[in-house]
Amino acid sequence: MDAYDVILQKRDTRAYAATPLPEDAVRRILQAGRMAGSAKALEPVRAVAIRDGAQLAAFAACGNFTPHVPGAALAVALVLVPEEGMPLGEFAQWRGPFDAGRAAQNMMLAAWELGIASCPFTVHKGDAARAVLGLPPGHIVINAVAFGYADPAARDPMRGQRPRMALESYVHWERW
Amino acid sequence: MDAYDVILQKRDTRAYAATPLPEDAVRRILQAGRMAGSAKALEPVRAVAIRDGAQLAAFAACGNFTPHVPGAALAVALVLVPEEGMPLGEFAQWRGPFDAGRAAQNMMLAAWELGIASCPFTVHKGDAARAVLGLPPGHIVINAVAFGYADPAARDPMRGQRPRMALESYVHWERW
Repeated sequence: MDAYDVILQKRDTRAYAATPLPEDAVRRILQAGRMAGSAKALEPVRAVAIRDGAQLAAFAACGNFTPHVPGAALAVALVLVPEEGMPLGEFAQWRGPFDAGRAAQNMMLAAWELGIASCPFTVHKGDAARAVLGLPPGHIVINAVAFGYADPAARDPMRGQRPRMALESYVHWERW
Repeated sequence: MDAYDVILQKRDTRAYAATPLPEDAVRRILQAGRMAGSAKALEPVRAVAIRDGAQLAAFAACGNFTPHVPGAALAVALVLVPEEGMPLGEFAQWRGPFDAGRAAQNMMLAAWELGIASCPFTVHKGDAARAVLGLPPGHIVINAVAFGYADPAARDPMRGQRPRMALESYVHWERW
């Protein structure tokens, strides 16, 4: 499937079937994240891949808007390893989340090409998440992604046509 | 070209030929960014597309590591419209850059499928960038992407094999 078609058709989807993901699909999703570029090639992003039901529920409890996460087939926590010598606040603003967004998008597009739906979620309770995931000191997790086959009983989630703002509103030429 | 192949092959590339991009390629790149999802579908990302040489140079001067930007065929500033009621620091950490990373990755993959190289850059001097781009009050720009056909005289930039950490180092299962 052409990359452009996957990009246009991908919709964030929050209702998943109970079907597990094939092992090679999970590997492909993680490979896609790994291959995303990063600022100065510092590779600050790591993935914690969660499929265990109890662990999914515990991790879901670290976010404020995560009712879809315990029923996901896979959640990937995008763990950030801050840049040495850069204050954490600066890293969290300037570097980490942008690179995490690049990796997340790669993962979600690779999944969508295999017919697997996904939706990112924010991990609001950083300390709780560090404990649930057993992160080393200084490592942080702000964003994660839930994956699963779309629930066929949910309202046509793979074909949802959530409107976007018009291209003319999205783009400014040369200056605002 | 399959999305997964584009994802695996895409390399951040900083040396561009002087060739301009076809109009429909520019449009496709911007469409790809527009179609990226966003937290709560708030669509906080906007694009300022810059092709004018003087404007490219002025915008490049707003970043600390941008020698490749004045020679790009196109730069896209990822402007963020902060969420109402959310303190700017929180928005910049929790929301904006992650969604900007998703949009940037979509744009770069759509470009790569057309044989167009790209590389993101950080916009360190926010106030200068606001002036150069004429942004409305409260709008911010942290990240941008440069695009262009790879310079054939540069060392094989489209086929660069920058190593990534091994998948086994990138991924942890269930917990760190």
